[in-house]
Amino acid sequence: MSEGADDKPAGKPEKPKRRATAESMATRQREISVAEFFSKNRHLLGFDNPSKALLTTVKEAVDNALDACEEAGIMPVIRVDVTETGTDRYRVTVEDNGPGIVRAQVPKIFGKLLYGSKFHTLKQSRGQQGIGISAAGMYGQMTTGRPVEIISRTGARQPAQRYEVRIDTQKNMPEVLAEAEIEWESEHGTRVSIELSGLYRKGAHSVDTYLDQTAIANPHAGLSYRLPGDDMVDLPAAAAELPREPREIKPHPHGVELGTLMKMLSSEKGRTLKGALTDDFARVSPRIADELLALAKLSPTAKSNKLTAEEVERLHQAIPQIKIQAPPSDCVVPIGEDLIRAGMERLYDAEFFTSSTRPPAVYRGNPFVIEVGLAYGGKLDGDAPCELMRFANRVPLQYQKGACAITQSVLDTAWRGYGVQQSRGAQPNGPLALLVHIASVWVPFTSESKEAIAHYPEIIKEMRLGLQECGRRLGMYLSHRRREADARKKMSYIEKYIPHIGLAIQEMLGIPDGERDAAMDTLVDTLERSRKVK
Amino acid sequence: MSEGADDKPAGKPEKPKRRATAESMATRQREISVAEFFSKNRHLLGFDNPSKALLTTVKEAVDNALDACEEAGIMPVIRVDVTETGTDRYRVTVEDNGPGIVRAQVPKIFGKLLYGSKFHTLKQSRGQQGIGISAAGMYGQMTTGRPVEIISRTGARQPAQRYEVRIDTQKNMPEVLAEAEIEWESEHGTRVSIELSGLYRKGAHSVDTYLDQTAIANPHAGLSYRLPGDDMVDLPAAAAELPREPREIKPHPHGVELGTLMKMLSSEKGRTLKGALTDDFARVSPRIADELLALAKLSPTAKSNKLTAEEVERLHQAIPQIKIQAPPSDCVVPIGEDLIRAGMERLYDAEFFTSSTRPPAVYRGNPFVIEVGLAYGGKLDGDAPCELMRFANRVPLQYQKGACAITQSVLDTAWRGYGVQQSRGAQPNGPLALLVHIASVWVPFTSESKEAIAHYPEIIKEMRLGLQECGRRLGMYLSHRRREADARKKMSYIEKYIPHIGLAIQEMLGIPDGERDAAMDTLVDTLERSRKVK
Repeated sequence: MSEGADDKPAGKPEKPKRRATAESMATRQREISVAEFFSKNRHLLGFDNPSKALLTTVKEAVDNALDACEEAGIMPVIRVDVTETGTDRYRVTVEDNGPGIVRAQVPKIFGKLLYGSKFHTLKQSRGQQGIGISAAGMYGQMTTGRPVEIISRTGARQPAQRYEVRIDTQKNMPEVLAEAEIEWESEHGTRVSIELSGLYRKGAHSVDTYLDQTAIANPHAGLSYRLPGDDMVDLPAAAAELPREPREIKPHPHGVELGTLMKMLSSEKGRTLKGALTDDFARVSPRIADELLALAKLSPTAKSNKLTAEEVERLHQAIPQIKIQAPPSDCVVPIGEDLIRAGMERLYDAEFFTSSTRPPAVYRGNPFVIEVGLAYGGKLDGDAPCELMRFANRVPLQYQKGACAITQSVLDTAWRGYGVQQSRGAQPNGPLALLVHIASVWVPFTSESKEAIAHYPEIIKEMRLGLQECGRRLGMYLSHRRREADARKKMSYIEKYIPHIGLAIQEMLGIPDGERDAAMDTLVDTLERSRKVK
Repeated sequence: MSEGADDKPAGKPEKPKRRATAESMATRQREISVAEFFSKNRHLLGFDNPSKALLTTVKEAVDNALDACEEAGIMPVIRVDVTETGTDRYRVTVEDNGPGIVRAQVPKIFGKLLYGSKFHTLKQSRGQQGIGISAAGMYGQMTTGRPVEIISRTGARQPAQRYEVRIDTQKNMPEVLAEAEIEWESEHGTRVSIELSGLYRKGAHSVDTYLDQTAIANPHAGLSYRLPGDDMVDLPAAAAELPREPREIKPHPHGVELGTLMKMLSSEKGRTLKGALTDDFARVSPRIADELLALAKLSPTAKSNKLTAEEVERLHQAIPQIKIQAPPSDCVVPIGEDLIRAGMERLYDAEFFTSSTRPPAVYRGNPFVIEVGLAYGGKLDGDAPCELMRFANRVPLQYQKGACAITQSVLDTAWRGYGVQQSRGAQPNGPLALLVHIASVWVPFTSESKEAIAHYPEIIKEMRLGLQECGRRLGMYLSHRRREADARKKMSYIEKYIPHIGLAIQEMLGIPDGERDAAMDTLVDTLERSRKVK
């Protein structure tokens, strides 16, 4: 901190320098391990406070369990246990019936940050960064000193293995403290158990809410849980089969950045430009590649890794000018309008339900689908801002509502046009519950703790379109309800006054009861018809 | 993705499995480079959209420049140029008169993420993670394909060097594309230049606002800037000397976590427990160490790396029970009440100013100081929510206001008690401007883009205390102003009616003018005195 400067101008009298020089500063520059980084910045991963830490730990383990089951084509059956082991200290155990994890992978999956199978692919899944569960284990280790305990079995013929794993934060490497074969009743699956400092609370940010909302967005999963001080809760699967498996895709050219394009073109040697374009991108047929290259004045047979920066720039500028088919829609698997509606009907005692699954769209080359569910009236609280459930790839988002593109798009929607109260720039007010789900091959979160969706204009636009679609249907329902109420009023007038008119006419004309009733039937019929035409 | 299961139970007829198995999943697990991670998650670093990307780039370069100058004991003179180089494309150049960077460090500082001098120390500075400037360079490279250009010179006797550096994202390693000695007029300093896709806009989130607020929190720095379409703006230094240099400190035992304590105790071999405690922690004297160890029933001469988990836990539980002096306060350098007040006086045409620098406090073992500035009345807009400037280690925070502990603490303060309008749970309303600054050896941001302060209760409490202190002074001023207004009203009554009373008395008693005036003087005097006593 206090080395002297060795190159101060000669002759000039100067106070002895006590502060740093370029040389002394250089001696302090060091590499930082990513585990050290996240251990110091653990709030980035959702471990800001004890109750959030508990929720995040449950969430990371359940998300992984669901991903593993679905990838292996197994209907998920997941059990969550949270037990108090001391003052503000809990043990979280999550067990699944998934495919299990092979021995060589267990230490790295649970004891190394930035390690996983999903980062380098474009495929819809809950986990994407290879950070979650190892960070939960690291947090447990930091706060209680206890390693992560894992039991895993990959099939009936394999023995179950039990492991104790910790993370060496300075190196971001796992250490296996114990490993043994054990007896385990399940034929295949994984059980992970983490002890941590935490706080168990009820409410919007609670583990309970997370699990209940998870059941809504994952009707194919069977969930059961036992939380501190409560009985076992059992949420059996509401759908009979797994969702279609999401397909892995290549990046779409629309939205690719210049620097990324440069990197892709030079990544392999010996490819022609045309070959590289058709290989590396979705929806670039040989014909599209030819069109692109003609527009950019480049030769299809040029070597892709020999292009100058200026040539790649020309190619990059040509891309948005060519019409290219949207990315394949089967790579994103929405929950579906029916299941969203069914989920909301299970949750809310309302009078009107609707849902919308938008067609796939693209942001920065990544396909995504927006889904919206809406419930209105009935027992929903009419004097409060609407309820809003946010989901990303079927995972409930419980924190950072204010920072989320979903909230933004709800605020941006003009609810008054649909008959719902709304102050300017505020959430709509009334007996309204909304659900917004984004499914994507890559969900852009605002932080690693995956709590809020980043504000990409393309995403906000799709959300708004979905909300508008549901809003319009609500508006139609409400105006229909209003018309029906008017009609009922008229009807009640007819019912109320016709008998009196009948009696008056009978008196004036002196006709018998039968004739009077026939005349009145004709009158009612005529009035009814005029009312309906109107 | 489609390997068959090779251990399915024999005999059971089964549809051919097309989904993954534990084995096939294992083949896809890979390590993720931190540069790949942040390149895909660039919104985490403040590059969510083009206008924010431009601001973040300027900010990272200016923050680094200020840090380097201060560390070297140089009064900072910084020049910022943003020029348009194409459609939505800009070149950001930031030049400082700092100590320069030695040749070996230039590539890593600008072309490697998680590399820096500040992460492993506890010392107040703007940069802390070793990500900012290399991420800005990476963003420029991703969007324009251009490398970062750096000129640096470490002293009059050294030649200036010019570099072009890019980052290999797959390896998170720098590549030097060009390097040469050049002529440069400055004797020492660094100039960094990044070309990027961006958008230049005015307003609360603009580069202009960032630079103006930077000048307020850094009165010792001379700033000049030229932004697209504008003339050169010159903000000369307003303080005559550098702030005191922040001191590096050891962690404080209050707030240390069990896992961290375990790691610290076992990090070096051959130390006694007492020695390890006094070496590794701030404010642990031999006497405090003895007290701690007695309470934990541990021997001072035990080897620190031989403790059982249970023994470390006993020690950890003993720590909060011992009174330990707060961390040394000179490790955190606040702006100071006078300079905050002066800065606000330069910015606002208001009638009342006050400021408060709180005594140092601690969260998770990290000392911090909260400062609050308040301006009221005058030309401030009385019909709007208060203006709020947020600073962390002298850096303005412009985004994510809603997610910030500073905003929270303003909402939590009961402003009505100080005579300022406030709806429940809302920002105070009225001609009010607030400034809140947190200075700390480690500022807990909610994301790497360093836009909002995490909600640690200790931090929110200190912010609230600072706001309350300024609020009370405002309340006193406002009630004083009210009393003065009352007094002026009474005074004006006296002035208005006394002459008439004098004339009436003179008429009734028939006394001469002199006697009347003397009697009236006595009356005025008596009334004045009674008014003042009251």
